[in-house]
Amino acid sequence: MSEESGSLSVRAVRGSAIRDLLAVVEQPGVLSLAGGLPSSESLPVERVARAAAAALRSPSALQYGVTTGAPALREVVHARESAKLGRDAGAVVVTHGSQQALSLLAQALLDPGDAVIVEDPGYIGALQAFDTTRARVIGVPMDADGMRTDELRPILQRARVRIVHTVSNFHNPGGATLAEGRRRELARLADEFGFWIIEDDPYGELRFAGSTVPPVAAYSDRVLRLSSASKIVAPSLRVGWMHGDAGVLALVERLKQGADLCGSSLTQAIAAELLADTAWLDEHVERIRAAYAERALALHAALIEAFGDRLRPTRPEGGMFLWGEFTDGTRTSDRLDEAVAAGVAYVPGSAFAVQRDLSHALRLCFTTGTPEELRKAVHRLATALPA
Amino acid sequence: MSEESGSLSVRAVRGSAIRDLLAVVEQPGVLSLAGGLPSSESLPVERVARAAAAALRSPSALQYGVTTGAPALREVVHARESAKLGRDAGAVVVTHGSQQALSLLAQALLDPGDAVIVEDPGYIGALQAFDTTRARVIGVPMDADGMRTDELRPILQRARVRIVHTVSNFHNPGGATLAEGRRRELARLADEFGFWIIEDDPYGELRFAGSTVPPVAAYSDRVLRLSSASKIVAPSLRVGWMHGDAGVLALVERLKQGADLCGSSLTQAIAAELLADTAWLDEHVERIRAAYAERALALHAALIEAFGDRLRPTRPEGGMFLWGEFTDGTRTSDRLDEAVAAGVAYVPGSAFAVQRDLSHALRLCFTTGTPEELRKAVHRLATALPA
Repeated sequence: MSEESGSLSVRAVRGSAIRDLLAVVEQPGVLSLAGGLPSSESLPVERVARAAAAALRSPSALQYGVTTGAPALREVVHARESAKLGRDAGAVVVTHGSQQALSLLAQALLDPGDAVIVEDPGYIGALQAFDTTRARVIGVPMDADGMRTDELRPILQRARVRIVHTVSNFHNPGGATLAEGRRRELARLADEFGFWIIEDDPYGELRFAGSTVPPVAAYSDRVLRLSSASKIVAPSLRVGWMHGDAGVLALVERLKQGADLCGSSLTQAIAAELLADTAWLDEHVERIRAAYAERALALHAALIEAFGDRLRPTRPEGGMFLWGEFTDGTRTSDRLDEAVAAGVAYVPGSAFAVQRDLSHALRLCFTTGTPEELRKAVHRLATALPA
Repeated sequence: MSEESGSLSVRAVRGSAIRDLLAVVEQPGVLSLAGGLPSSESLPVERVARAAAAALRSPSALQYGVTTGAPALREVVHARESAKLGRDAGAVVVTHGSQQALSLLAQALLDPGDAVIVEDPGYIGALQAFDTTRARVIGVPMDADGMRTDELRPILQRARVRIVHTVSNFHNPGGATLAEGRRRELARLADEFGFWIIEDDPYGELRFAGSTVPPVAAYSDRVLRLSSASKIVAPSLRVGWMHGDAGVLALVERLKQGADLCGSSLTQAIAAELLADTAWLDEHVERIRAAYAERALALHAALIEAFGDRLRPTRPEGGMFLWGEFTDGTRTSDRLDEAVAAGVAYVPGSAFAVQRDLSHALRLCFTTGTPEELRKAVHRLATALPA
């Protein structure tokens, strides 16, 4: 098509390879841990139906809306985010899921040749958003405490880094949460070197073990914080948001005008009502946490039992994913066909690799299987991937 | 922020100037013809509420969807567009309004330095989408038969034109419809020079006078045809679509993944139901046409009566806008304050200028005022802009 589009192809193909994978593995008979969806049972159809009916009493729910998002929605998001930060959250722009926030920030902040630092393994959506700008993407390894912030300084000294992106809580795919000390360190570096931190936090409210860590945005003004209603209410509202620096957000607003004019007044009205209904929401999110806790525990226990020392799984404290690394040289990309033949699927670690070799790793999603199904899936996995 | 973002500012400011204008003029007491919204009375709240309730009987209406759009929606769009073309419409991708289709096509097809041809006056949304790519935007004047296609060849011979964008029916802001002979000529030139035509047709079904002209896409395969549910059902569904070349659409799909992952399963389910309910839809669109016909006629007649030869207004055959050019040197940008003081508002032609001097022109929207209100608005306009 064009040279520019040619340059998109590597990651775009990678993204579509995952979709192709999902198409193959999501067949009857295959217990798929490869997906990344909220559980169907957690989707509040009745509550949304009530909110939709209420919103649709006025034609304004069907009309164009303002580019930055419905004022009532921005207000409740602002209040919720300010509470998390312990200070005023600043300007808020509602986006079409947090993926759009990533895409608009990439457009707003990056020139060709600029560098972006991401965690390695990396979140695919972020990699896709950054790749469309022709920025240089540099991966920094993670451990059990999240991004290895001690590896940042030498990179910052040699490259023109404009953005450091982090999925701060319950990383997708890496599972880890960025430790408090590292959040402070990252914030200090942003102030020192003048880059922007994108704190991408769709899972933060889905903590079911351990204790909450303050957002990175609590430690610096150079943080653009992203979250979404997708994991606590419903993906199809396509309601994400970002908050932070007013200058950056004004630029994002202009880019959003060109990208899609505005979000849906209807789904934004629904989101505003549900996020403001704290009695309902607190109970709803608590139910999701309890279900995911039970599933994560079942998956983790079954993996320990089936694989012993051969596999090092993260022990999830929240979110939707468990990350595992084989210690005996098992190459997950090479074994997927056998796994699918045995009736189980996962995403090979290599799909998320930025610079590291992650061919010994895999991502497992624990949200959409019952504990019984997850145990059965692990049993099949052990059969397909013998020592 | 960055050099790239700096280059966006001219048009972005122009876009936001219109928003600022709308904020100023949409005050109590001002009869605004400056907007561009469907009339509130045309928004089918009850029918949408029924469709929403039906969709929300299944959790799938709240889940993530496929990037290209819900299969049921793509199917009905494909059938409708194929009927308009008289042949298979090709691949279909559902987008977040047709604005997102413009934005993704600009990303997919344009490299920095490529040229894009648009009508002059130009559609602001297209100008914003093209500007974010740093493409060169070249305006071609319009007359009563739409884009002056006789002016294209010399431009095509000297510039690397990748896209010609046209709002083929009831142009926003120019009012005109591209004549059939010019559609054929444009298609021939696309085949000869190898550029893509973006046929942007949100208003085509809102014809209330004259006879339908076949789409530009009926004459060439090098047409990416865009339309939307916004003007015939409701803007807040944020359901637009494009159809045409499978290779371009595959690239658009990948870019959409990075831009926002997918549209809303909920609003797409609603749109699929309503577009497939032809008995309801035909009657609904007929009601909109009848209302807009009455309003357009009232506005046109009032302008002729009030301004006589001083103003040359288009005579609308569909869509939402009337374009007028003063013949006596009246400069619309300089007189807007007086108009607002007199209780009426319009958008000055200069807001839509690509290369032409349109300071003597104005855009008037006839959808949101009753005939009585429109006559009153014209009376105020005549008072504020005396000969």
